[in-house]
Amino acid sequence: MSGKVVIVGAGFAGLTVAKKLGNSSFEVTILDRSNHHLFQPLLYQVATAMLSPADIAVPVRHVLSQYMNINVKMLEVTGVDILGKRVLCGGESESFDTLVIATGAQNFYFGNPWEKVAPSLKTLDDARAIRKRILTAMERAELEKNSSRRAELLTFVIIGGGPTGVEMAGAIAELTHQTVVGDFRVAEAERARVVIIEAGDRLLSTFSEESSREAQRALEHLGVEVRVKARVSDISEGVVRLGDEVIAAGAVIWAAGVRATPAAAWLGVPADRAGRVVVDAHLNLAGQKSIYVVGDVAAVTGSDGKPLPGVAPVAMQEGRYVARRILGETTEPFRYRDKGSLATIGRRAAVAEMGSLKLRGFIAWVTWTVVHIYYLIGFRNRVVVLMEWAWAYFTRQRGARLISPET
Amino acid sequence: MSGKVVIVGAGFAGLTVAKKLGNSSFEVTILDRSNHHLFQPLLYQVATAMLSPADIAVPVRHVLSQYMNINVKMLEVTGVDILGKRVLCGGESESFDTLVIATGAQNFYFGNPWEKVAPSLKTLDDARAIRKRILTAMERAELEKNSSRRAELLTFVIIGGGPTGVEMAGAIAELTHQTVVGDFRVAEAERARVVIIEAGDRLLSTFSEESSREAQRALEHLGVEVRVKARVSDISEGVVRLGDEVIAAGAVIWAAGVRATPAAAWLGVPADRAGRVVVDAHLNLAGQKSIYVVGDVAAVTGSDGKPLPGVAPVAMQEGRYVARRILGETTEPFRYRDKGSLATIGRRAAVAEMGSLKLRGFIAWVTWTVVHIYYLIGFRNRVVVLMEWAWAYFTRQRGARLISPET
Repeated sequence: MSGKVVIVGAGFAGLTVAKKLGNSSFEVTILDRSNHHLFQPLLYQVATAMLSPADIAVPVRHVLSQYMNINVKMLEVTGVDILGKRVLCGGESESFDTLVIATGAQNFYFGNPWEKVAPSLKTLDDARAIRKRILTAMERAELEKNSSRRAELLTFVIIGGGPTGVEMAGAIAELTHQTVVGDFRVAEAERARVVIIEAGDRLLSTFSEESSREAQRALEHLGVEVRVKARVSDISEGVVRLGDEVIAAGAVIWAAGVRATPAAAWLGVPADRAGRVVVDAHLNLAGQKSIYVVGDVAAVTGSDGKPLPGVAPVAMQEGRYVARRILGETTEPFRYRDKGSLATIGRRAAVAEMGSLKLRGFIAWVTWTVVHIYYLIGFRNRVVVLMEWAWAYFTRQRGARLISPET
Repeated sequence: MSGKVVIVGAGFAGLTVAKKLGNSSFEVTILDRSNHHLFQPLLYQVATAMLSPADIAVPVRHVLSQYMNINVKMLEVTGVDILGKRVLCGGESESFDTLVIATGAQNFYFGNPWEKVAPSLKTLDDARAIRKRILTAMERAELEKNSSRRAELLTFVIIGGGPTGVEMAGAIAELTHQTVVGDFRVAEAERARVVIIEAGDRLLSTFSEESSREAQRALEHLGVEVRVKARVSDISEGVVRLGDEVIAAGAVIWAAGVRATPAAAWLGVPADRAGRVVVDAHLNLAGQKSIYVVGDVAAVTGSDGKPLPGVAPVAMQEGRYVARRILGETTEPFRYRDKGSLATIGRRAAVAEMGSLKLRGFIAWVTWTVVHIYYLIGFRNRVVVLMEWAWAYFTRQRGARLISPET
C-alpha cells in the first residue's frame, strides 16, 4: 500500500488521520491555514481569562515531527480539482491519490449581520476578542459615574444554550462574581448580570432532561439568569432584543450556531441543511472512493438515525476509521461508539452522561477535568493547564486578564 | 499629609510609586491605557515563542487591589492642564494635588518610515507581531521550492546591538538552530542566518569592553553573525540595505532606538534630545513642586555626569524616591545606586557587571535568571515562568509557537 494522502485541516479529525498514518508507507501531507492544532473544548477558558492561547494550542508540525513520512504545510485551501486529483491553495496546488477533508465548522448567524456585535468562539483570535470585550466592559464600568449605565456595562449576554453557551455563562459568572470582585472600587462586579438565552425549551438539548435541569440549577446557583424559549430578534452594539424586551449589555457572545466550512462548494456536491457534505457508510464522498470527508464538515448518521453531533469524540473516531480504511485494515462501514457527553458549568459543577449513567456536581466535574486533561495534546500543555486550574481552584484567581490598547 | 496623587503610567516607575503610597493617607489614582503592568525585560521571550503574554503581565488593578486608597483607571492621557491641576484623558479629566508622570518610552526610528517593515518590541502586541513574523517566515521557507529564496526567508536581521538586540539575536538563533530543527522537512532551519547589526564599534556599549567581547563571542558561538560599525541605510519589506550591501530577510526586527513618550509636549516644556523631560535634583519639573517625572520619560543625570539609562532599576529607584518625597520622608536629592547590569545571550550564557565584578557564562546566566524571577511580579507568574524555563532548558522546546491566520 502506498500513494500520496492529502489531509485538509489539522483539527481533531485531520490530526487523528495523520497520526494513525504516521510511519506508514504512505506519503502524507497535512494542510492547515494556521500553524497550530487547537483544543477547542477549552477555548471558552481562554475567552474568560483562565488559560493562555498557548496552553491549548500546539504547532501541528511539532506534534507530527516524529513521523518522517508526514509533511505539514501552512496553506489555505481554496478548492479541489477532483478530476485532476489536486487540492488548490491560491496559486499553489497539492496532488493526491487519497484526499481527506477535515476542515470543520465555522460560526453561523443564520444570515444575520451580527458577527461584529456578538462575536462567537471558534479560533484563538475569537477567544482573545471576547476576553477583551468582557474585561473592557468591566474597566468601562469602573469609569462610569451613572449607576444604571454601570449596571448595563456589567451585563453579559450569552446567546445559545448548548455546551459552549453553558460553559461561557458559568465561567463569566465566576469571573465577575468571584475573581475580580476585590479589584474594583466603583464597578459592582459581584452584582454583574449574566444572562443565557436559549430558543429551545431547555439548556443542553442533546443531553437528557435530567442533565438539562441540573445545568440550569447549577447556573442559577452561580447567579446566571437562564432564559429558555426566548428568541433573539435583533442584536446591535451592546443591545440584544427579544421581541419587545431590550437588554443593554457590556458584552454579547454568540454561541447559538455553527455551520460547516464550504467544502461542499469546493467539491461541487450538495450540502445538507447545516452546510455539511453528505457521505456514504464508509465516509466517502458518493462515488469517490479516494475522497473522504470527516469531522464537523461531514454529515454522518448515527445508529439512532440522527446526525452525529459536532464534537471531538465523533471527529476522532471518524479520523481513526478513515486512517484504517486507507491502511486497508477494515472494510466495515463506520460505526460511532458513543462514550458519553460532558459539559462543565463552573468550579465543582458539571454534567456527565455515559449511557444510562448520569453524573452531576463534583464527581461530574472531576470526570470532566480528567477527560479534558487526558485528551489535551502534549505533555507540557497538560502540566501547565493542570497548574492553572489548581491555582484557580484554590485562589479563585485567573492568569490571563489582559487587554491590549488599540493600535 | 494628604491630598490627591495622580500617577500616569503603570510601568516599573509608576507602579513602584503607587505601591509605596499604598495604605497611606493619600488618595491615589493610577492611569494607564492598558490594563496590565508589563515586565518588559522578558518581552523578547514572548517575541521568540518562549513565554506567553500572560506570563509577563499582570492586571494593574489586581496588583494594587489590597490598597484601598488606590484607584486604577484604564484611560489614555492626552494632556496636562498644569494651572488647573488636571490630567486630561480625551473627554474625561482627573484633578490632582500631586502629579507623577511615568509614561515611559516608545519606539523610535530616527524619522524613518520603517515601523511596518521592521517592527520593534515595546508592547505585548509588538511581541505577538514579531513572533508571528519569525514563525511565518519559517513556514513560508518550508513551502519554498527555490533554495536561495528559502535561505533568504531563513535570514533574520536584528538592528541594534543593545541588550534587547543581543537577547533577541540569541533567542532567535536558539529557536531556529535548536528548537524547531526536527519539525521541518524542507526548510533548513539549522542553517538559518541570524545577523545583528550595530552602528557603534561594539555590542552592549553601556557595558565594559570585556563584556562586549564576551557577548559577541557567545553570540557567534550560537551562530549569530555580528556586524559592528555597520549603518543601515534603508529598510523595505524583507530587505535591509547597508550602503551597497543588500540583505534579504524573512524578518527584520528593530531594536536600535527608543524615544520618550510625549510628556514634554503635554507639560509644555522643552525635551532633551531623546524626547525626555528635564527634571531637577528632586525629580520635579522645574519650578513645579507638585509635578514629578520618573522612569524612561525623565532625563536624570547620574553621579558620573552621564544620563541614567532607561532600565527597570533606575525607574524603580526613582519611583521609590518620589513616593518618599510625597510622604515627606526625605528632603535629599535623588541619587541612583547602580547595582549592576545584566544581559542574557542564550541558554547558559549571559554577561553581568556589578561594580568591578564582571561575570560571564553559566554563572552570569544563573544570576540573570534569579534576578528576573525575583523581580517578576506575582507569585503565580514566577512559578509559571520558572516552569517554562525549566522545560525549555531540558527539552530545548518552546511553548508558544502560535500563528493566527489573518482575519
